[in-house]
Amino acid sequence: MSSAESTWFTENFDHSGSSIGFRIKQQLHAEKTPFQTIEIYETTDWGNLMVIDGCMMVTGRDNFLYHEMMSHPALFTHPRAKRVVIIGGGDCGTLREVLKHEEVESAIQVEIDERVTRLAERYFPELCESNNDPRAQLLFVDGIKWMAECEPETLDLIIVDSTDPVGPAEGLFGEAFYVSCMKALRTGGILVQQSESPLIHLTLIKAMRNSMKAAGFHAVRTLPFPQPAYPTGWWSCTMARKNADLSSFRERGAATKQFVTRYYNVDTHRAALALPEFMKEALGD
Amino acid sequence: MSSAESTWFTENFDHSGSSIGFRIKQQLHAEKTPFQTIEIYETTDWGNLMVIDGCMMVTGRDNFLYHEMMSHPALFTHPRAKRVVIIGGGDCGTLREVLKHEEVESAIQVEIDERVTRLAERYFPELCESNNDPRAQLLFVDGIKWMAECEPETLDLIIVDSTDPVGPAEGLFGEAFYVSCMKALRTGGILVQQSESPLIHLTLIKAMRNSMKAAGFHAVRTLPFPQPAYPTGWWSCTMARKNADLSSFRERGAATKQFVTRYYNVDTHRAALALPEFMKEALGD
Repeated sequence: MSSAESTWFTENFDHSGSSIGFRIKQQLHAEKTPFQTIEIYETTDWGNLMVIDGCMMVTGRDNFLYHEMMSHPALFTHPRAKRVVIIGGGDCGTLREVLKHEEVESAIQVEIDERVTRLAERYFPELCESNNDPRAQLLFVDGIKWMAECEPETLDLIIVDSTDPVGPAEGLFGEAFYVSCMKALRTGGILVQQSESPLIHLTLIKAMRNSMKAAGFHAVRTLPFPQPAYPTGWWSCTMARKNADLSSFRERGAATKQFVTRYYNVDTHRAALALPEFMKEALGD
Repeated sequence: MSSAESTWFTENFDHSGSSIGFRIKQQLHAEKTPFQTIEIYETTDWGNLMVIDGCMMVTGRDNFLYHEMMSHPALFTHPRAKRVVIIGGGDCGTLREVLKHEEVESAIQVEIDERVTRLAERYFPELCESNNDPRAQLLFVDGIKWMAECEPETLDLIIVDSTDPVGPAEGLFGEAFYVSCMKALRTGGILVQQSESPLIHLTLIKAMRNSMKAAGFHAVRTLPFPQPAYPTGWWSCTMARKNADLSSFRERGAATKQFVTRYYNVDTHRAALALPEFMKEALGD
């Protein structure tokens, strides 16, 4: 099939003047939920594609990069994360990665829009294969409110796996939310959040890091990784830790992990801690 | 400017079913040379963009990633690369990075199409700022033929900075060319070549590495790095070494380098040596 006769779903990123597209076979689903518009496409080469409010969220082919990097670096930095909360993450891919860790006793996914999860179950069943794990709990409520009301010092790891900081996710990038996270975490607890592209969102990354520190987090680190479906194909997560630094990578644990990953290993974990020169300068790391 | 009323240059990658685009202000130049079609666009956010035969080659904003990673890891692996040859590289960005190294006594750029360089001088002057360095020599001849006729054991580093393995660059990915490179290199000499996307071109990367080994190279390593303007936004170079392994990273030299880089540093060099799990499995590293 040549490009002339094929159909493409293209997302234009107005903010960065760049775009990414995938060739599609057909639209499988489209609906407007109380929170957002969700579309599902079948692509020719990238498996199924979920689009929320026009923004690509997940493809079957490259989501492993994002989901593994949102979970394993934090879980192998914490000495023993027993109680984990995922804010957002409705496609359940992060939940699946978290539950690969035996030390996790409870993983709560707090997604505002139940339809994201229901559609993931149907169109991305591989991401949902751990949804029935007895340690998993799926809540469909507002993550900001849930975190504000969370019992203090009860969590070891908070993973913020949200859409971009516009619309329902905007509040997840502000100091008030980080103050709630600080309160909810036990000593040594970690917050990790998707933090957009190192190349075009450096201002946002700096603001996030400053807000995390203002909320009382002791140490902050930003980890870049590849992610073809997101603007520039280069993405990041930012980790923040309560009452401890972030140098405690359990390399032995990662090297002897008893589960399969496709991107993550000891080497890529270390590699993600390396910052390019322009990021070092901008972030003062 | 919203996407609805703006103009975009989009490259559809038929092979991978994905596309990348940049918003443009205007086309600055278009011509058909004896070798290929070259277009130059002014973008809204990525500086100028050079397109060859419909494929994006260089943008002003992100080329530093590629040019730095095509040159500094190899130059800081070789103990003292005095004589360097760049095959292709007509935009002169790799030449500029190479000439930042004081140990380099001679850098020859062998580009088949003089028009690429003339247009780079006009539309990417920052990449051409070292073209008048007395150590630089710009040749406009066929790189495959040049290498086949090169005096044996006279080069320390060969950088193959070419277009994709179709059209004029196809022969640069074959064993016969690598045999020429082996012959032209001194003992301990390094060949480094752009090797496409780790995610969608793994078959090509494996074939390249096998051909390099078949040509007699002792050690081979593939280094991934981000590159937004190329398919998937994730790219790689592959290094091969004659009569020596590739573990000789001069970290002290890199840490005390007397020139400015934006991506490259000791940490990102080490990070580029880390392979994701799926690449380790596929490449047997």
